[in-house]
Amino acid sequence: MMDNSVSFHKKLKGKLSVVSKQPLRSRKILSLAYTPGVAEAVKKIRDDKKSVYDLTIKNNTIAIISDGSAVLGLGNVGPEAAMPVMEGKCAIFKEFAGINAFPICLNTQDEQELINAIHWMSPSFGAITLEDISAPRCFNIENHLQDLGIPVVHDDQHATAIITLAGLYNALKLNKKKLKDTKIVVVGSGAAGTAICKLLLTAGAKNILIIDREGILSKSRKNLREYKKELAQISNPENISGSIGDAAKKADVLIGVSSKDLFTPDIIRSMNNNPIIFALANPDPEIKPSLAKKCGVKIIATGRSDYPNQVNNALVFPGLFKGLLHSKKKRLTDNIKINVAQTIASLISKPTPQKFIPTIFDKRLVPAIVKAVESTKD
Amino acid sequence: MMDNSVSFHKKLKGKLSVVSKQPLRSRKILSLAYTPGVAEAVKKIRDDKKSVYDLTIKNNTIAIISDGSAVLGLGNVGPEAAMPVMEGKCAIFKEFAGINAFPICLNTQDEQELINAIHWMSPSFGAITLEDISAPRCFNIENHLQDLGIPVVHDDQHATAIITLAGLYNALKLNKKKLKDTKIVVVGSGAAGTAICKLLLTAGAKNILIIDREGILSKSRKNLREYKKELAQISNPENISGSIGDAAKKADVLIGVSSKDLFTPDIIRSMNNNPIIFALANPDPEIKPSLAKKCGVKIIATGRSDYPNQVNNALVFPGLFKGLLHSKKKRLTDNIKINVAQTIASLISKPTPQKFIPTIFDKRLVPAIVKAVESTKD
Repeated sequence: MMDNSVSFHKKLKGKLSVVSKQPLRSRKILSLAYTPGVAEAVKKIRDDKKSVYDLTIKNNTIAIISDGSAVLGLGNVGPEAAMPVMEGKCAIFKEFAGINAFPICLNTQDEQELINAIHWMSPSFGAITLEDISAPRCFNIENHLQDLGIPVVHDDQHATAIITLAGLYNALKLNKKKLKDTKIVVVGSGAAGTAICKLLLTAGAKNILIIDREGILSKSRKNLREYKKELAQISNPENISGSIGDAAKKADVLIGVSSKDLFTPDIIRSMNNNPIIFALANPDPEIKPSLAKKCGVKIIATGRSDYPNQVNNALVFPGLFKGLLHSKKKRLTDNIKINVAQTIASLISKPTPQKFIPTIFDKRLVPAIVKAVESTKD
Repeated sequence: MMDNSVSFHKKLKGKLSVVSKQPLRSRKILSLAYTPGVAEAVKKIRDDKKSVYDLTIKNNTIAIISDGSAVLGLGNVGPEAAMPVMEGKCAIFKEFAGINAFPICLNTQDEQELINAIHWMSPSFGAITLEDISAPRCFNIENHLQDLGIPVVHDDQHATAIITLAGLYNALKLNKKKLKDTKIVVVGSGAAGTAICKLLLTAGAKNILIIDREGILSKSRKNLREYKKELAQISNPENISGSIGDAAKKADVLIGVSSKDLFTPDIIRSMNNNPIIFALANPDPEIKPSLAKKCGVKIIATGRSDYPNQVNNALVFPGLFKGLLHSKKKRLTDNIKINVAQTIASLISKPTPQKFIPTIFDKRLVPAIVKAVESTKD
C-alpha cells in the first residue's frame, strides 16, 4: 500500500484537471467565452450581482480549504503536505456528486488570517469546506464565517458527526437500544469528537462521556480550554472523573476519533453486552476489526474504505454540499444534519453486523442526501 | 453578439469543470487516492517539501487572481463580475497550453490584503497570474511578491507588453524602420501602457511619449502619482507637453491601451508616413480598422480575436506560463520577455499588413514560447 500510493500520485502528477466545458476551437467560440463577447456577461453581473450564479461556476463550485494543521491522523504537516488529501477529496466531490471542488492550502495557521483569506476568496465559490484544521481554531473560524452568505462547513466536524449518527441509528437497531438510554463514550475531543458529541445530544442522547489525553472531561477538571469547558458542561451528567478505562465500564457505545490502537482488549471487555465500536481514526483505527472480534465485538465500524461499515465523512460530504448548493442554503443547520443522518440510516432497510451503513458506492446515497437537505425547512 | 454571449454563459452555467484524472470507480483506487493510502503521499511531502511538485497538481496549476478593479475596458466591476473573464482565461490556459488554471476573485481591493491573500494561498499553485487589477496597486502587489518562490506575473502588463513588442518587430519590418529610430506614442498609462513603455525601452526604443487623461507625461507635470513620475523620467526625452494630438504629430507608432474611439481621423492623419496603429482597447478599440483604413492606415492591429492581427496577451500567456512551470523559474525576467517577443515575431517569416502576427490558433505558438522561456538563462 505504502509505495503503491506514492507511485500512484507520482504517475498522475496531481489528481485533478481543470478543463473547459466548451472547447475553444473556433474564433467564434473564443469571442463568446473571452473577449469581446465576455464583456456582456461581466456587465450583466455588474448590474445584477445574483446573476453570478447563472453565468459562472459559482453555482456548482466549492473551495476545500486547509492549513495542514490536523491532516488525517498525522498532525501538523503543513499546507504543501495537505495537498494530496485535499485533491483526493476534490476528486470524490466530482466523482460522487458532480461538484467542482478546488483545493486551497493556506500558508498561515493564524485564526484571523485564515478567516480573512476565506472571506476574501468567497466570491468565486458557492460554498466553503474547512478541512483538517486543528481545534479550537476550526470552531472559531467556522463560527466567524456563518454570515458570509454561502455555507462554510468544517467537514471533519459535521460530515463526520452526521455519518456517525447515521451509523449509530442502525447499530442501535442491532442491539435494540434507544439513543436516550445509551451510555456513549467518545474518545477524542478534537473537531470530530466535539461535533459528534453535540449532534448526538441534539438527536436525543443523554449520557455521553468525552475523553481527551488527560481523561474524562468533567466540570471538576481545571485549566480546560474554552471549548472543552463547554463540552464538560453539556456532557458527563454524573460528573465522573477518570481514564478511558473508567469511562468505558458498562458503556454501550465506544466511538474513537483519536489514534491507533487506543482501544485495548481490556477496555472492550469492560463494556456492556453487545457493545458498539466505532474506531474511526485514519489511517489506523483505534482497534483492528480482527482484534475487536476476538474480544467478542459484533458491531464494529471504522473510517476506512477497505473494511466493512465505513463511517467516514466521505459518505456524507458529496451529497451534503450538492444539496446545499442546489438549494442555495446559506448555512448548514442542526435540522439538516439530523434529516441527513436519518436518511442515510434508512437506506439500509435490514441492518446486519456485516452491513449497517451504505457503502460510498451506493448510488442511492447522494440523491437521498440532496433530497434530505433540500426538503429541510431551515 | 450581446445576447449571444450571455446566453452562451447561461447555458454552460460556468465555463470550467474540475475533474479527477483517475476515476474513483473502485475501492482500491479510492484507497490509493484518498484514505488510507494518501497518507503515504502526505508523509513524503511532509519529509521533503519539494516533492509537492511530483505528487500534486502544483507543478501544472496556476491561480488567476483578480479583485475586479480594472476588468477589460469596463473598470471597477467588482469580484463577482470579473469571474466570466477569469473563467475564460482559465479555459484558454487549458485549451492552448494544457495548464490547470483556477479563477480566484478576491473580495478586497486593499493592496496589503491582496498581497496577504496571494501569499497565503500560494502552496497550492505553481505560479500566480494577477489579472485586471488597477494601477498602481498592480505594480506594488507584483513587486512585493517577487520573492514568493513561484512566479507572480501581472499578465495585463507583461504578456501585453510581450505581444506588443512581438507585433512591433514585424510591423517595423513592413515600414522599414528600426525600433531605436522610431517615434512611439503610447496612449494609456495604466498597467499595460506602463509595461509596454518599459519593455520597448529595454528592447532599444529611445523616443516614447506616454499619454494619460491629462495629456503627455512629462517632467514638468505636477502632482503626478509615483509610478507616473517614474514613467515621465524614462520617457519623453525632449520633455514635450500637450495633448494626444500634439504627441501624435509625425509619430511612427501609435499604441492605444486606453478606450473606445480615442484615435480620431485627425490624429491618425497627423502621423508620419505609413503609420503603425495598435488599437488594443477591449472590447472596443481606439479606432475601428475600417475607419483607420479610410485614413490611409495599412498596418493596424487590435486586441480582438475577430479582426486580423490580434495583439492580445492571450497569444502569450499560455506558452509563457507553461514555460515558467516546466522550467520551475521563480520569476519572469526582462530577458525572458524579449526572447519570447522575438520568438513570436519570428513565426511569421514574411510579414504582410494582412498578417504580421500569428493567430492564437497557430499550433507553433505555444511550443515556441515554452522553448524560448526554458532556454533563457536568467
